[in-house]
Amino acid sequence: MVTILNQDSNSISQYISGSLAAHPHLATVPHLPLIYNRHQDANLIPILSGGGSGHEPAHLGFVGDGMLSAAIYGALFTPPKAPDILEALRFLDKGKGVFVIVKNFEADLKEFQEAIHEARKEGLDIRYIVSHDDISVEPKKQFRMRHRGLAGTILLHKILGAAAQEGANLDQLEAMAFELTTEIATIGFATKSASLPNTQKALFNLDDNHISYGIGIYGEEGYRTVPFLSSEHLAVEIINKLQIKFHWQEDEHFILLVNNLGTTTDLEQGIFLNDIRQLLELEGLHLPFIKNGKFITSLDMTGISVTLCCLKNRKWLDYLQAPTNAFAW
Amino acid sequence: MVTILNQDSNSISQYISGSLAAHPHLATVPHLPLIYNRHQDANLIPILSGGGSGHEPAHLGFVGDGMLSAAIYGALFTPPKAPDILEALRFLDKGKGVFVIVKNFEADLKEFQEAIHEARKEGLDIRYIVSHDDISVEPKKQFRMRHRGLAGTILLHKILGAAAQEGANLDQLEAMAFELTTEIATIGFATKSASLPNTQKALFNLDDNHISYGIGIYGEEGYRTVPFLSSEHLAVEIINKLQIKFHWQEDEHFILLVNNLGTTTDLEQGIFLNDIRQLLELEGLHLPFIKNGKFITSLDMTGISVTLCCLKNRKWLDYLQAPTNAFAW
Repeated sequence: MVTILNQDSNSISQYISGSLAAHPHLATVPHLPLIYNRHQDANLIPILSGGGSGHEPAHLGFVGDGMLSAAIYGALFTPPKAPDILEALRFLDKGKGVFVIVKNFEADLKEFQEAIHEARKEGLDIRYIVSHDDISVEPKKQFRMRHRGLAGTILLHKILGAAAQEGANLDQLEAMAFELTTEIATIGFATKSASLPNTQKALFNLDDNHISYGIGIYGEEGYRTVPFLSSEHLAVEIINKLQIKFHWQEDEHFILLVNNLGTTTDLEQGIFLNDIRQLLELEGLHLPFIKNGKFITSLDMTGISVTLCCLKNRKWLDYLQAPTNAFAW
Repeated sequence: MVTILNQDSNSISQYISGSLAAHPHLATVPHLPLIYNRHQDANLIPILSGGGSGHEPAHLGFVGDGMLSAAIYGALFTPPKAPDILEALRFLDKGKGVFVIVKNFEADLKEFQEAIHEARKEGLDIRYIVSHDDISVEPKKQFRMRHRGLAGTILLHKILGAAAQEGANLDQLEAMAFELTTEIATIGFATKSASLPNTQKALFNLDDNHISYGIGIYGEEGYRTVPFLSSEHLAVEIINKLQIKFHWQEDEHFILLVNNLGTTTDLEQGIFLNDIRQLLELEGLHLPFIKNGKFITSLDMTGISVTLCCLKNRKWLDYLQAPTNAFAW
């Protein structure tokens, strides 16, 4: 196996330079690991998200009009540092405050909360939401739900970003974020572990022709390993898990997001999406918005995650359908 | 390794059903392997392209307003059949003729030309262009250029599609297509061969930590295998080959398209894009339009292709920047 890198250790900044060249609406700040939308409207509330690298195209692929104002990044699988986040908040604030979207990982929370605390001491009005859409379980902790922030975070980026674009204020964004997060659930599977770019060492072992359910985006192993039977079997297992979360009734409306965790082919993802969709329709559910693509990855992991969001508020659908120039949406 | 499939052999139609569910502007015709844009404007010249399956998201990902009117597909790595192409031409024609974009593979040409011949006999005005952007060579045939149709085909889809959307007639599309095709060149490399979904058998062997230059999209091996050194070394080799084709001078303007051949990570592709871009800028070239993504693949091949198009006509830039709802652009 080959990983296309250069000998030096600046992989992330090289990736960012490449992405900026291809997407002229993006810009960086000297000495700050921040990618922002050149077009900032001082009348709108800026939205910041971010996290460790290794999840490309997240989060810089979601920076653009009607989505994130900026993304702050850390090293590989390492959250951005609190002083950098603080600097980013100062940079983005135009007097109306900043809204922040953080994924629920202990290390991320620590850095973001520290920065938010400091920014508030400086008088900035900062609100934030912690995305926790993961419904997989932790076998070593009495099968408690893990509640990590996974691909469902991207729905927060889009819906809150479109609301901010429409002029929502901080209170409105905060209220919408709280309403939304509890309605989003994600579960995924891997057919191959991620490996670190330099060592090419797999982060967990998976027997040939086996799949791991409930993997995370930092290379964490899932809670159960089973032989692969078919795409449809996989879809049944995933849908069962999501039904336990939602207890849905016939005729309910859901948003479906299917996410490539890294190196699954489009052909396979389309087949799997089709199985997921058919099962949800058999349950009598309506799917007015289906998003299929590569949104948040775990390096070269092969696998797919499925996110459902119960459409409690029809306005969310308008926000999902609103235009954006964020390249990974 | 696991390939996410079902036991039956309808992988392609399952993929298409999934894609249609996620992209409501797409529709199919009963009993015809055709995906078309629901929104057909009878005043505009329809554009048809297509080819074998296994290259997802090509070509259905390019069907939409301002790009392809429809895509016709065949079985895995097998071109669509002439009678189906003929049926598609009849379906698309609204009295003004149809423009067809065919990739230069012997088997594809045979089927498309037969269908076009029949359609013309029926009185339809059909024009077509053969994309032949490949500049890799054939070691067994005195290193003659192969001239297969590769990712450069997608630039034809976009530029001709936008021109048609603006009201270009068949003569204008034909003239523009001829002017364009000779200005487009593509060369790629693989770090891992594609494998067939059912057998998971690699289509060619590649030693560990080696790369193959000049691979094709049907799983064909390249013309030269070398050890991998770095992304920058790779970029130098690719740029040298493109320079032989173009003999560029300082200050010339080029369009750059970097294409994921299947399962390369976004992180690696961004790093490689950055190296390519830097080298072209060192040559004194201007790159007013850079497109980076996954456009035309070879199943699960790991690799990247680089397409350059000499910007002989500034209008092409407007057409590239024009909006489209084709999901893979």
